[in-house]
Amino acid sequence: MNRINRVAIVGGTHGNEFTGAYLIQKFAQFPDLITRPSFETATLLANPQAFAVGRRYLEKDLNRCFLKQDLQNPTLNSYEELQAKSIQKSLALNGKQADFLLDLHSTTANMGLTIILVNTHPFNLKLAAYLSEINPLVKVYHCSFESIAENPFLNSLCELGFAIEVGPIAQGLLKATLFQQTEELIHAILDFLERFNQAEIPLTNETLTLYHHLSVVDYPKKQDGTIFGMIHPELQNKDYQALNPGEPMFLTFENKTIVYQGESTVWPIFINEAAYYEKGIAMALTQKQQLKIWRC
Amino acid sequence: MNRINRVAIVGGTHGNEFTGAYLIQKFAQFPDLITRPSFETATLLANPQAFAVGRRYLEKDLNRCFLKQDLQNPTLNSYEELQAKSIQKSLALNGKQADFLLDLHSTTANMGLTIILVNTHPFNLKLAAYLSEINPLVKVYHCSFESIAENPFLNSLCELGFAIEVGPIAQGLLKATLFQQTEELIHAILDFLERFNQAEIPLTNETLTLYHHLSVVDYPKKQDGTIFGMIHPELQNKDYQALNPGEPMFLTFENKTIVYQGESTVWPIFINEAAYYEKGIAMALTQKQQLKIWRC
Repeated sequence: MNRINRVAIVGGTHGNEFTGAYLIQKFAQFPDLITRPSFETATLLANPQAFAVGRRYLEKDLNRCFLKQDLQNPTLNSYEELQAKSIQKSLALNGKQADFLLDLHSTTANMGLTIILVNTHPFNLKLAAYLSEINPLVKVYHCSFESIAENPFLNSLCELGFAIEVGPIAQGLLKATLFQQTEELIHAILDFLERFNQAEIPLTNETLTLYHHLSVVDYPKKQDGTIFGMIHPELQNKDYQALNPGEPMFLTFENKTIVYQGESTVWPIFINEAAYYEKGIAMALTQKQQLKIWRC
Repeated sequence: MNRINRVAIVGGTHGNEFTGAYLIQKFAQFPDLITRPSFETATLLANPQAFAVGRRYLEKDLNRCFLKQDLQNPTLNSYEELQAKSIQKSLALNGKQADFLLDLHSTTANMGLTIILVNTHPFNLKLAAYLSEINPLVKVYHCSFESIAENPFLNSLCELGFAIEVGPIAQGLLKATLFQQTEELIHAILDFLERFNQAEIPLTNETLTLYHHLSVVDYPKKQDGTIFGMIHPELQNKDYQALNPGEPMFLTFENKTIVYQGESTVWPIFINEAAYYEKGIAMALTQKQQLKIWRC
């Protein structure tokens, strides 16, 4: 990969994550904003029907529909499964594939401006290091898969690029400050790509702070599957902060504290993400790492 | 009305407002918590199917289904319209009507612990004055209707009682601090009712600060109905604070400020409530008033 020729910016993959969906509509209306001299940029509102009704999805979470085997399976034909195949065709096939793919998400968790890497391609790492250097709100989460075939995310369609996960913000609304911060981050990314094409990659620190995915934790649940506790007040909004063994994790409805019982410090993220209640995820635990980056 | 014999606490009228729904489940499991010597307390999860799928409603907003004429109209038979008739039967008819009705809601707006009065019955005013005296988070909003027949809210079923609207909280999740604050408010209400029955109504201030509904304001919209602006960052989270003519109200996607163009100061509430995007409501404007209350 010597040059970026085509960038795709996707939003509204989840229909109730308005920040990305409305940014896509803004960019579609004012394409000059995302135009750069050396590459073209396309926009895509990924789940228009879910956006129209303000829901995450209609039948199935679209951002879990991009497993390679599912895209090739002709028997899968829910609205989102068909939409995933259509998006694959428009972004990855048909001779106009994207070289770089951004997917815009938002979260009810206090995750600032999170970059979600699904691989550790040196280009992605360098861009992530650059962005986290120029903006302290930027955090980098590495959600690894054994192989690309096991990755169900939209970003599996393209080796370069990542999802951006901004928060905290409730579903189904816009917050002006977060809208502006997300737009500024996108401009910084496009400017970086332009400088790369001009062989002027900005200098970065030699190290990148990376939060590497370890596992997920469910809510405390009764045998019938109903929850009996909430995120502990001392943990709420503490995404990317160290959680040590013995520290509070949940508070039951009867006001009993449940502590973290692991053996080593972890850094929780996606704490109290609304969309993950149905997935049985109260938070994801990560390991904070310092990664060496090549300099140009 | 000399005595409260039966109290009903309703939650999950909107299925994605988890605070009330889970409090109802807690109270149903531990009825001693809401039992008082002089009256019985019933609980009701009002929209169980919407709660099961984590949505506000399935077909129609349940809390707009309680117009008297609609409850009597046999041709209305969506899930929520039927549910409203069923709730009316269980709470207001059948010889076991509630004397006092609490309906538990939550909002993405920064409304603290808001009491929504739909009438100015002296008993409701006195209770509201007492609650706002003992807890500075309590605010009192008066959403008036010309007559009871024009009131579509669940609280129209009972003259005494009100809705409690707590926030800010995203839809589809629980925040432990707000869960606890709401539960404490409910206990304060039940204790007040018990003391009323014992002829020991607590003293209160002689005045009540009331936010009286004036009008609603929509988002800035293009001719095709799509919005082109957001709540201005300087107004976000400023519920119950004075908004003066000329002060920022919206920020367009192109970073232009739209100011409040009214002629007198107002006190906006429900600022950026997610569920009101589809209703064309960016906020409700109120007038702050001091109301004289009778003392006992």
